Amino acid sequence: MIIVLKENYNSKQLDNLKQWLTNQGVRIHESYGVHQAILGLVGDTTHIDIDLLKALEIVEDVKRIQEPYKNANRKFHPLDTVVDINGVKIGGGHFQIIAGPCSVESEAQIMEVAQAVKAAGATLLRGGAFKPRTSPYAFQGLRQDGIKLLLEAKRLTGLPVVTEIMDISQLEAFEEIDVIQVGARNMQNFELLKKLSTLHKPVLLKRGLASTIQELLMSAEYIMSGGNTQVILCERGIRTFETATRNTLDISAVPVLKGLSHLPVLIDPSHATGVAKLVPSMALAATAAGCDGLIIEVHNDPPRALSDGPQSLLPEVFAGLVRKINRVRTAICETAEKRG
Amino acid sequence: MIIVLKENYNSKQLDNLKQWLTNQGVRIHESYGVHQAILGLVGDTTHIDIDLLKALEIVEDVKRIQEPYKNANRKFHPLDTVVDINGVKIGGGHFQIIAGPCSVESEAQIMEVAQAVKAAGATLLRGGAFKPRTSPYAFQGLRQDGIKLLLEAKRLTGLPVVTEIMDISQLEAFEEIDVIQVGARNMQNFELLKKLSTLHKPVLLKRGLASTIQELLMSAEYIMSGGNTQVILCERGIRTFETATRNTLDISAVPVLKGLSHLPVLIDPSHATGVAKLVPSMALAATAAGCDGLIIEVHNDPPRALSDGPQSLLPEVFAGLVRKINRVRTAICETAEKRG
Amino acid sequence: MIIVLKENYNSKQLDNLKQWLTNQGVRIHESYGVHQAILGLVGDTTHIDIDLLKALEIVEDVKRIQEPYKNANRKFHPLDTVVDINGVKIGGGHFQIIAGPCSVESEAQIMEVAQAVKAAGATLLRGGAFKPRTSPYAFQGLRQDGIKLLLEAKRLTGLPVVTEIMDISQLEAFEEIDVIQVGARNMQNFELLKKLSTLHKPVLLKRGLASTIQELLMSAEYIMSGGNTQVILCERGIRTFETATRNTLDISAVPVLKGLSHLPVLIDPSHATGVAKLVPSMALAATAAGCDGLIIEVHNDPPRALSDGPQSLLPEVFAGLVRKINRVRTAICETAEKRG
Amino acid sequence: MIIVLKENYNSKQLDNLKQWLTNQGVRIHESYGVHQAILGLVGDTTHIDIDLLKALEIVEDVKRIQEPYKNANRKFHPLDTVVDINGVKIGGGHFQIIAGPCSVESEAQIMEVAQAVKAAGATLLRGGAFKPRTSPYAFQGLRQDGIKLLLEAKRLTGLPVVTEIMDISQLEAFEEIDVIQVGARNMQNFELLKKLSTLHKPVLLKRGLASTIQELLMSAEYIMSGGNTQVILCERGIRTFETATRNTLDISAVPVLKGLSHLPVLIDPSHATGVAKLVPSMALAATAAGCDGLIIEVHNDPPRALSDGPQSLLPEVFAGLVRKINRVRTAICETAEKRG
Repeated sequence: MIIVLKENYNSKQLDNLKQWLTNQGVRIHESYGVHQAILGLVGDTTHIDIDLLKALEIVEDVKRIQEPYKNANRKFHPLDTVVDINGVKIGGGHFQIIAGPCSVESEAQIMEVAQAVKAAGATLLRGGAFKPRTSPYAFQGLRQDGIKLLLEAKRLTGLPVVTEIMDISQLEAFEEIDVIQVGARNMQNFELLKKLSTLHKPVLLKRGLASTIQELLMSAEYIMSGGNTQVILCERGIRTFETATRNTLDISAVPVLKGLSHLPVLIDPSHATGVAKLVPSMALAATAAGCDGLIIEVHNDPPRALSDGPQSLLPEVFAGLVRKINRVRTAICETAEKRG
Repeated sequence: MIIVLKENYNSKQLDNLKQWLTNQGVRIHESYGVHQAILGLVGDTTHIDIDLLKALEIVEDVKRIQEPYKNANRKFHPLDTVVDINGVKIGGGHFQIIAGPCSVESEAQIMEVAQAVKAAGATLLRGGAFKPRTSPYAFQGLRQDGIKLLLEAKRLTGLPVVTEIMDISQLEAFEEIDVIQVGARNMQNFELLKKLSTLHKPVLLKRGLASTIQELLMSAEYIMSGGNTQVILCERGIRTFETATRNTLDISAVPVLKGLSHLPVLIDPSHATGVAKLVPSMALAATAAGCDGLIIEVHNDPPRALSDGPQSLLPEVFAGLVRKINRVRTAICETAEKRG
Repeated sequence: MIIVLKENYNSKQLDNLKQWLTNQGVRIHESYGVHQAILGLVGDTTHIDIDLLKALEIVEDVKRIQEPYKNANRKFHPLDTVVDINGVKIGGGHFQIIAGPCSVESEAQIMEVAQAVKAAGATLLRGGAFKPRTSPYAFQGLRQDGIKLLLEAKRLTGLPVVTEIMDISQLEAFEEIDVIQVGARNMQNFELLKKLSTLHKPVLLKRGLASTIQELLMSAEYIMSGGNTQVILCERGIRTFETATRNTLDISAVPVLKGLSHLPVLIDPSHATGVAKLVPSMALAATAAGCDGLIIEVHNDPPRALSDGPQSLLPEVFAGLVRKINRVRTAICETAEKRG
Repeated sequence: MIIVLKENYNSKQLDNLKQWLTNQGVRIHESYGVHQAILGLVGDTTHIDIDLLKALEIVEDVKRIQEPYKNANRKFHPLDTVVDINGVKIGGGHFQIIAGPCSVESEAQIMEVAQAVKAAGATLLRGGAFKPRTSPYAFQGLRQDGIKLLLEAKRLTGLPVVTEIMDISQLEAFEEIDVIQVGARNMQNFELLKKLSTLHKPVLLKRGLASTIQELLMSAEYIMSGGNTQVILCERGIRTFETATRNTLDISAVPVLKGLSHLPVLIDPSHATGVAKLVPSMALAATAAGCDGLIIEVHNDPPRALSDGPQSLLPEVFAGLVRKINRVRTAICETAEKRG
């Protein structure tokens, strides 16, 4: 951490600052130029509050050199974390495809989709029970009943299940759920993150629409700081000025996150684009970029006039996509055949 | 609502769609061109799920004409809502300044700041007890103890108090709090919004960092849809590419929101800029743009080496700012002397 | 095009509007609801000025249904455009890799890099002669001398050359250049685009940092409207709030552009990320997404202490990347072996 | 400037780097920690190419402490620049309102509007002759004829005139124009900036839609580096995710720019919002924020069915706005009565 002092600081303020920094356990390298005095802090600065320093009258600017996260940091944990979901491994060369409907709608629907995605090659099942919807007038999910149906689909297919939690009070319903998903809108619901940090259960943490990569890692740090090391990161599109897609999928987040952190990184092309016909090319792109897995919305196509989301693939399209994904995985890495 | 059909739709799909729309209680105006067929929906389309329509195979695009919110919509409630906070009114020409420290730190601190801001002209007191912090290693607030100190400051000064809730489970502690603040990161914590919609207590709803004005109004609609009409909107900066300020204060949100909605609109220049020296000019700008009030961070300056936020004003600076704010209010509207 | 009228329009204004629209050669479908009257325009609306309509007192909103570009629009030109650069084809299944240094620095440098990228599999050579630099104090390129060196490298290797024009006045120097590049900062330099529309030479048009996909296509339309149909589109990263990469590479622009337009689409992973170690994964991702080619910065590594850009690959890294790119191309499409 | 070295640098690379830096005329303060070695550069680092340093193998990161601009920097020119436009002064307490139509359309129109805005209190006349339009099919301006009409309006009213240049080749037509405007899309048209730097004529430089404040100042530096010190900065809205306004007016740019630079700062509320009814509140907000002037679109309202832009004010609305602007100026600064 580098502290740039204002030109006209006085020596008493400087002494106070140096005393305080020393008490925080860091050593100080001082450098005095004609116009600028600079303090370089050496040691663990993770716990130093950068806003506090910036507020000081004698400080012009503070710049971080070290990342402000430790548990999620690859520098301190060079080896990839492998998250084990009842025997289905993700990370460290293990690649998984999570698939299923946007919302659990009925027993028939979730059973049919679960079997279809399993047959197509998915290794985990997703399905929304508690649904975050922008409008209070839109369908809010089957909630506890949705969780029950999802667990039935798990028993039927053997696929571990992933579903989203929206509030701490729902936690009881997630006892048999294999992976708890924290949605993009809750990435900085810090009370929820703290609660999840006390569990021994994998958490799929989605990046917020306007969250930086560093903020995503800080939210992972929240979960890990309480002892839960089973965190899976997920990029699902960020909000930009472009309106041709619902959000802009930041695929470069894959190599950036894998450089900064040892945690597995998933991509969700369905929510990012919001358009089914764009999902396959984005899924292939994410695979080629080296992600550890994908989460893709698939729906069946019942003979109703109105079915679910504009971003969902039909099972047969999904099956064809899985075959291409596997070919791309082979193409980018000859020795990347690990699976399950 | 306008539905644009794909060129190659078939008549059976069209009949299904028209039947479904009619069942939703809207009338249909059809328009057939050479390349494009268009259905215009007439009636209340608030409850129609736009995503559902977009998912249909025969639909190319859906465009909303009506806003998807009703309770928050000025079209249905032309008169300004005036929120009454124990006699302190906001909206409909009533302008208020909420001031106080970022965090409640100690009894001495909150009492001193509360008295200072009251003397300077603030009419409500703010202070954070539950603090959302990006880092798990940063100060998380005094929590329940902070609430208690805030209530003591209320008793001392008579100022109604505003403080942030981060989770439904904290609600009990807010019984004597006058205005419950929903922070930017929780603007789409829909479970929390639904809970607050059952209360009879003013809610200060901050716009999310990457939330559109329409999404802010949809979150207000969540709170109002349960019967709580006491919602105060607050713009506090949006996330953009610019790094010279912490966020970009979207002052144009003031006239836009006041055109679309009847709810009072506040501006928070402290969090938007993150820099104390920019706060006065942004507070004056927001006032000139016609907002219904401001929420400003003020701290005292104890003889400690390290005090709080880089975005807080000293009480004497705040007092001078209040005088200028009042002059600007007079300048923009000769008859805008209503207060308290 | 849909025109939504204000509630309180008068019939004289409406008659004027309808008369004007009819004069523009479009037919009008009228739809009158309780709260809203809507005019649907049928016919070619490309030439109708949407801003003009929005300015009318009786108009509440105007929404486009048709795209405002015609020459670049796949609806009117369903087959892929294949741009032929002295026998090197791009688009319509033909995939090309353009490579070379950021700037042409010296004869030795450009000759060495040109030979290296050719050996590695590049089929076109890039190199900056006129360099747009944010700072007036930074290296501005060798300009005309750079063009000459580039043409020497072309003679040596037989590779067609691509280089950037910054101003109409430089055009004379580009006579022997095979592809004229319009940089991101000049995407809306409309005078330059109009000039290029009079040439019979391929133009590589880069998307602006804050330009929408529609604006990119409108700029292509400028070039095409004068008769130059040889336009190659290029996504090179857009500006977002994220600072971990220089820009955010919008890979979803590939399938979106290829859906809307028949023009070839390139990706520039070097400028998008600004970091050499991220370039290979982004190049592979773009390939998997179905782009028609890549433009990649490669530099040699002379024994100088200071070499060029942080975003450039060494020739041997580039050669390995080309092999992987070819494998990914095979993986996504069995019949995609066309080249050159 | 701070250079952070990689952990595993070797001493030969370090010696090379230090030698090179010393040759650039800066002194080096070295600081070696357990994990990190840091070089602090002391002296004038304006001319050091930060990208060059970042490219070095031994460098992990480079952080600027000093701003990379000098002529535009308030640190080196503490006093406000006052631009004198034929006796009309702007900056240093002098506040001016530039008004006129978006485009010059006809002699009658520009004469009528020019007289109306003068009567209302405008002190400079604006009007577009060369018009940058997104679509090649939209009206491109009267070009040279528009310039002539503008100069006639200048003779009639005595108001100095401001109009936009789009290309170097148009420069001859600007000989009698008082202020040359560089539009947002040309803010980084560096060849144009270099040409303007050789003139002795005020330049109104608009911020690009996706340009940072630092980039705006770097473009000002381009103009100033050739000796033209008469630069007026103008914020006109930046591109964000919000679609309720055309762009988001970044009013905080006013105090930020005035802190960093001595150049006058204008606000253009018309282009920023794109909606006439939002212009007055944004103009007042900008005034309250302390800008040095405004540029506002005003059109007359001929009895034609279709007039110009949705963002233009009628002369009588503009006149009322000028009165309020003057009241706000008095409110924020008792001694700010300087004018013209």
